[in-house]
Amino acid sequence: MNNILSEAQTLQFQSDKVMEEEQVESSSTHRVTSEGIEKVLYKSIPVLDHGFIRVIDYMGSDGAIVQAARVSYGKGTKTPSQDQALINYLMRHKHTSPFEMCEIKLHIKMPIFIARQWIRHRTASLNEYSARYSVMSREFYLPSLENVKPQSANNKQGRGGDMSTKEAQNIINTIKQDSLNAYDHYLDLLNLADENSTELKDEDKTGVAREIARINLTLNYYTEMYWKIDLHNLLHFLRLRADGHAQYEIRCYADAILEVVKAWVPLTYNAFEKYINNAVTLSSDMMKALQRMIKGEKLTQENSGLSKTEWRDFERMFHNN
Amino acid sequence: MNNILSEAQTLQFQSDKVMEEEQVESSSTHRVTSEGIEKVLYKSIPVLDHGFIRVIDYMGSDGAIVQAARVSYGKGTKTPSQDQALINYLMRHKHTSPFEMCEIKLHIKMPIFIARQWIRHRTASLNEYSARYSVMSREFYLPSLENVKPQSANNKQGRGGDMSTKEAQNIINTIKQDSLNAYDHYLDLLNLADENSTELKDEDKTGVAREIARINLTLNYYTEMYWKIDLHNLLHFLRLRADGHAQYEIRCYADAILEVVKAWVPLTYNAFEKYINNAVTLSSDMMKALQRMIKGEKLTQENSGLSKTEWRDFERMFHNN
Amino acid sequence: MNNILSEAQTLQFQSDKVMEEEQVESSSTHRVTSEGIEKVLYKSIPVLDHGFIRVIDYMGSDGAIVQAARVSYGKGTKTPSQDQALINYLMRHKHTSPFEMCEIKLHIKMPIFIARQWIRHRTASLNEYSARYSVMSREFYLPSLENVKPQSANNKQGRGGDMSTKEAQNIINTIKQDSLNAYDHYLDLLNLADENSTELKDEDKTGVAREIARINLTLNYYTEMYWKIDLHNLLHFLRLRADGHAQYEIRCYADAILEVVKAWVPLTYNAFEKYINNAVTLSSDMMKALQRMIKGEKLTQENSGLSKTEWRDFERMFHNN
Amino acid sequence: MNNILSEAQTLQFQSDKVMEEEQVESSSTHRVTSEGIEKVLYKSIPVLDHGFIRVIDYMGSDGAIVQAARVSYGKGTKTPSQDQALINYLMRHKHTSPFEMCEIKLHIKMPIFIARQWIRHRTASLNEYSARYSVMSREFYLPSLENVKPQSANNKQGRGGDMSTKEAQNIINTIKQDSLNAYDHYLDLLNLADENSTELKDEDKTGVAREIARINLTLNYYTEMYWKIDLHNLLHFLRLRADGHAQYEIRCYADAILEVVKAWVPLTYNAFEKYINNAVTLSSDMMKALQRMIKGEKLTQENSGLSKTEWRDFERMFHNN
Repeated sequence: MNNILSEAQTLQFQSDKVMEEEQVESSSTHRVTSEGIEKVLYKSIPVLDHGFIRVIDYMGSDGAIVQAARVSYGKGTKTPSQDQALINYLMRHKHTSPFEMCEIKLHIKMPIFIARQWIRHRTASLNEYSARYSVMSREFYLPSLENVKPQSANNKQGRGGDMSTKEAQNIINTIKQDSLNAYDHYLDLLNLADENSTELKDEDKTGVAREIARINLTLNYYTEMYWKIDLHNLLHFLRLRADGHAQYEIRCYADAILEVVKAWVPLTYNAFEKYINNAVTLSSDMMKALQRMIKGEKLTQENSGLSKTEWRDFERMFHNN
Repeated sequence: MNNILSEAQTLQFQSDKVMEEEQVESSSTHRVTSEGIEKVLYKSIPVLDHGFIRVIDYMGSDGAIVQAARVSYGKGTKTPSQDQALINYLMRHKHTSPFEMCEIKLHIKMPIFIARQWIRHRTASLNEYSARYSVMSREFYLPSLENVKPQSANNKQGRGGDMSTKEAQNIINTIKQDSLNAYDHYLDLLNLADENSTELKDEDKTGVAREIARINLTLNYYTEMYWKIDLHNLLHFLRLRADGHAQYEIRCYADAILEVVKAWVPLTYNAFEKYINNAVTLSSDMMKALQRMIKGEKLTQENSGLSKTEWRDFERMFHNN
Repeated sequence: MNNILSEAQTLQFQSDKVMEEEQVESSSTHRVTSEGIEKVLYKSIPVLDHGFIRVIDYMGSDGAIVQAARVSYGKGTKTPSQDQALINYLMRHKHTSPFEMCEIKLHIKMPIFIARQWIRHRTASLNEYSARYSVMSREFYLPSLENVKPQSANNKQGRGGDMSTKEAQNIINTIKQDSLNAYDHYLDLLNLADENSTELKDEDKTGVAREIARINLTLNYYTEMYWKIDLHNLLHFLRLRADGHAQYEIRCYADAILEVVKAWVPLTYNAFEKYINNAVTLSSDMMKALQRMIKGEKLTQENSGLSKTEWRDFERMFHNN
Repeated sequence: MNNILSEAQTLQFQSDKVMEEEQVESSSTHRVTSEGIEKVLYKSIPVLDHGFIRVIDYMGSDGAIVQAARVSYGKGTKTPSQDQALINYLMRHKHTSPFEMCEIKLHIKMPIFIARQWIRHRTASLNEYSARYSVMSREFYLPSLENVKPQSANNKQGRGGDMSTKEAQNIINTIKQDSLNAYDHYLDLLNLADENSTELKDEDKTGVAREIARINLTLNYYTEMYWKIDLHNLLHFLRLRADGHAQYEIRCYADAILEVVKAWVPLTYNAFEKYINNAVTLSSDMMKALQRMIKGEKLTQENSGLSKTEWRDFERMFHNN
């Protein structure tokens, strides 16, 4: 019996159990609360095939943003519509610091290839599950049939277009087989009989350290993290990751978090949708072209002063012209 | 009647009033709470002659740190003494990320020269009172008699030693006169009859913009800010600013905040005091000297291998030798 | 003779002298260089009445940005026009990380009230002159006659409109008198006969510590700092501080730095001007209004779906409609 | 012939070629240079089986640190020994900001599981090779025989102790087979005949997007990045990652970078080794125990006031007692 692994395994099981039994009863607080987000606290919101997001804690509300803005800008407001107007003003004019006054902490389960994109956002705090301390679970991501697509013809980083169902199914099967195979060998490397027990597979072997064994896993294995970020930086994250250029899988997480934001700070959510997420930025050349167009001039790419890609974006904005 | 100034003034009064009438009733929450800090929420804790700190909001508790550590390190703990041991372990081994999982928001009133030191700490969010938007109050810091000291003989940046009461009193009087004079002229520049009204001093003048007038104020005038920071970075701030090399005035704020930390996360406070704040770091040369000393060797600066200043620090640590 | 102050004074003089005698000869390097910025290295570029900016060091060039982008995006480019196109692409699509690969270090002399705005930008490194270690110089900012203006009627934080020359001159005189007065008393507090010597004013006094004396200075006194920032964050700084809403005095610094950027990374400068600095962001409501307008509909604020302030901005963009 | 993939492949080949043909000739600069680091500029320093570090650019030198300190602390120094003393002083007293005035940019090739640890350090800039844009190379990390070890008995996160050569060899073989298998299927998923060509494997298939195919690769595949960080944060990285608790593989990188630091800023390297890397921190309880020990008292864990793990560390420090 290998005591070291046994201890590690035990810890992992404790850890999993503890995750579920977290605070559900309510306490009394003098802090600002947000009714909307209280309703989803601790509840797992499923994302992809085995992932989730789960709000663990939050600080502040729309009111806290207004309050912080008042310190700087001396704008006393009272009614909800005045609060909305002030938040709109802050959002439009990029007065971002009051939005930093709200904070959220999420528990997230996501595939490793998504975690790699996630932590490119550096202005957040995080604690990730460590495969040096604990054994990884046999859980990996498989894309669903409709999300298996060829390389996009017009987006060098993304997917797009069609593929035969048969080819797509084969692709999923290949990934599934390799994932299962990698995990079986992961247990072999650890010399564990089973993911859920501490029994050794072969009493004559020691198995290799967890920090080595895990390098045999594929990038679609799930990991978990606690992630804490302020609202300003969260909105920045969402703008980039809920965008059509982001990889489909991280967009699923961003969309789920956007719903949480809507419940938590509804006035801020409105302003974000209007002034950031659905806003359009026009370069100085586009503005010139637009002003000519409004005067009634007939524009083509050639006479517009815009490059081909700018013209394509421009036409998309005003396609009905 | 000048409507612009009048509006600004009105906003300022609103702002001051709103500051006082903040949430005192309690609500229900599913979030983690800390009993100790709930008791001081929103209460002004006086610092210096006109300053204060006031906790506006917080996220997390000792338990939240343990919980986050468990995600990474898989250590399930249950009893308070196990929690203390885990937090000690994290603090000793500089596993700092779980401490980032707690957050605090303070409302602070401090002299501008202190604010200048304060915001050298960049890993925090803040909203400061803006003298471009609002009129500054006639409030400035004067050191008390016992804190007026000459330049320190052994600390190039600090104060130390004695001064005649008469000289000290004269110094205070000079600063007071200049502060009052600066403010009188500040109102003149703004063309305001009075700090608390919107009446013009001279109907034939326009007064200058607030953003210019304020440059006439001295560095001891009070400003206010909302300041939000995570616990890890707060402890770093406190280690530097509660230290004897910090300026006396900022130390007063650091000491007040340390008391808040003690009420908020008592286990973390204990670990911080033991492993950081009262810990001692020995250079490799000091360690060599110490090991020789323990073997019974008689050391002097000359034979110790230490520079003069290192030897002075070394002697101070083990003065009873 | 007071040795402590004497030493401090000596240090200050050394420091001032050393600042001037910095490297002017050239060395050989394998690093990427930028011809344009080499020409201004170490040269003081005057800003305001006594301030300056001075490039101390830099890392990278337009080519370094292209090179870093190539690592991520695999886009090999060869000609200057392809480099410009790639940099335009990065700028338009907010692929900001390659711009972080360039860095600049500036020596800046600016009034304290500007330094206070400056260091709100947290993603930079800085070393500021310390008035705890050294004696401040008798240098303060006075606005020129044409920059003394009343509070702006439509910009709550700025200045605008006219003022009689006589009132403006009186305002300057008041600030000047108070500045001189503050400095005379600053020397009295330090018990120094003269800013440029270490002679005591009164042999029977000790003088107060520098860290206290300096609180008597006004916010227009000049300070100095070394400031180091990457190009991405510098452009963000410039977008905010070269903007019409920024205080006039900090805009003067931003404008001077923009010229340095133009010399250093001309392709990036072009892209910044086109896609950021002179770009326009339209909210989703503005886009809807614009699309109706392009279709030939006659819009008013009432039927536009825009708030009054949005409509005002909208009209300003398309005033010729 | 699939044009999209073809283009992507071409880009990758360009990219690889460009990486090698970087600047080797030297230019003239007015900037501060460091002779030691100039010698290693652009040269690949091998790490692990297929990795490397390569200095791409740097800013500053020991002299630049002294210069920045002088701005803040007014300490003029002239001789190398005075420079060393000042840098020692800054390091000992944690005056970290002058070390931020130096910057380095590295090109690093490392396995993905190391990259995951690497980018936990958030105060750096980076551009990583994107497997969404480009095809990954068939390069993966295999531990050498002597680095394949069981889970450590006393370090819950590390490896330690012995394993039969046969078991170790089997472990390496398993990882190798799975890595090769994963890559073969990666090419299948992309429908590429060969890593180095753009020929399709099967003309009747489209292949899946790169962003999906790459999820089939294992964590030991190599990635590349440009990484830029200031010297203060680099030293922090090195303290943690050259430490015995860090995973062996990242320690190899940290050790290689330490050699670069030694060549670049030798005075800073000395101070770092003395005051940080080989320094020892004693908790307040350890200091009390030490003082009793120095007085001649005989200590045991029981009477020492130290916990068992603290006592173990304590004994290790003073084992000759």
